[in-house]
Amino acid sequence: MVRLYDYAGSANCYKIKLLLAQLERPYETVDVEIFRGESRTPEFLKKNPAGRVPVLELPSGEYLAESSAILAYLATGTALWPEAPLPRARVLQWLFFEQYEIEPTIGTVRFWKLTGRDKSQLDLFAKKSDQGQNALTALDRHLEHRSFVVAETYTIADIALYGYTHVAAEGGFDLSNFPAIERWLKRIEEQPRWVPGPPPYSALAHG
Amino acid sequence: MVRLYDYAGSANCYKIKLLLAQLERPYETVDVEIFRGESRTPEFLKKNPAGRVPVLELPSGEYLAESSAILAYLATGTALWPEAPLPRARVLQWLFFEQYEIEPTIGTVRFWKLTGRDKSQLDLFAKKSDQGQNALTALDRHLEHRSFVVAETYTIADIALYGYTHVAAEGGFDLSNFPAIERWLKRIEEQPRWVPGPPPYSALAHG
Repeated sequence: MVRLYDYAGSANCYKIKLLLAQLERPYETVDVEIFRGESRTPEFLKKNPAGRVPVLELPSGEYLAESSAILAYLATGTALWPEAPLPRARVLQWLFFEQYEIEPTIGTVRFWKLTGRDKSQLDLFAKKSDQGQNALTALDRHLEHRSFVVAETYTIADIALYGYTHVAAEGGFDLSNFPAIERWLKRIEEQPRWVPGPPPYSALAHG
Repeated sequence: MVRLYDYAGSANCYKIKLLLAQLERPYETVDVEIFRGESRTPEFLKKNPAGRVPVLELPSGEYLAESSAILAYLATGTALWPEAPLPRARVLQWLFFEQYEIEPTIGTVRFWKLTGRDKSQLDLFAKKSDQGQNALTALDRHLEHRSFVVAETYTIADIALYGYTHVAAEGGFDLSNFPAIERWLKRIEEQPRWVPGPPPYSALAHG
């Protein structure tokens, strides 16, 4: 069985749990208390030199890090990670778009709202909010005449982009300005074995 | 023949040119003047909704964006992009590490030095310099007992990480603090058909 080093509030971790649920693949989780520095210990850095969750531990004892790399690994041999070179490269294009344009903007803005950092660095918060808005604009335009992100079929690119996009409101983004994104989010939530996640940070912080 | 939408100062573009040279694959380039907004025109956004170079145009007329996705596509069927699921996922792990930890720190810091933005936002410049230093520390630790980033063989993960790491000095990073990285850079420069990349911004800016 695979083991997931996990933090409940992280949408990067949630992506892996959504995929595992949809693949009906059993797994166990290990909670990593990132706010207590548990992802920065020398022991954890051996699992992932970047000091971040998620990390997947394989039955062989090997570790794999970076959420999108884990998605690709787990989806190998399924339609969620197409094999033909160009569809596969296009899934990669959107996985990289997500980690470059969505996660560091929408994910960070959402995270700062919990930790109060939005108030201590107003300029940077505003800048990242603008960048997140631009990323949503690009994604909305792309989805305008499409059912899914790549090749009109549900892939790990949808899972990855869904992760932070569907909780963007927690970062102050108004998704009603992005109708194609709203339709696409609904489509994803209708997929077999979809599971909700992650809980709002406020629930984590207080409960 | 493939066509590369290119900006000479971009190490993201250089990565593609290094791979194409090593694969001995002919290509043509189209210069995109990013400082004049040419990557943000409606026409260019149809090629890449994220409005960035590089973009690859295929003989079919289709476009592919995101440097790492382009590397994977072009290296399909070669040892530079291993087929076995775990080595392939590990290459992806380091491609995502590069786009998340190296490019937005070392790449941005280097870019700001040209445009003078390092002086107008000292706090953010210092923060990104620190993050870049941390990324180099993680990479150096990983390379300490390895010849290449993944599986002791030269892959597109090496090409991607080489892109901004080898010009880190232009962003003020002192690579002599990272001896494993220095050895690895030299190893890459000894690969067949290696080509030097991108000129310092100062050369581009002045002439």
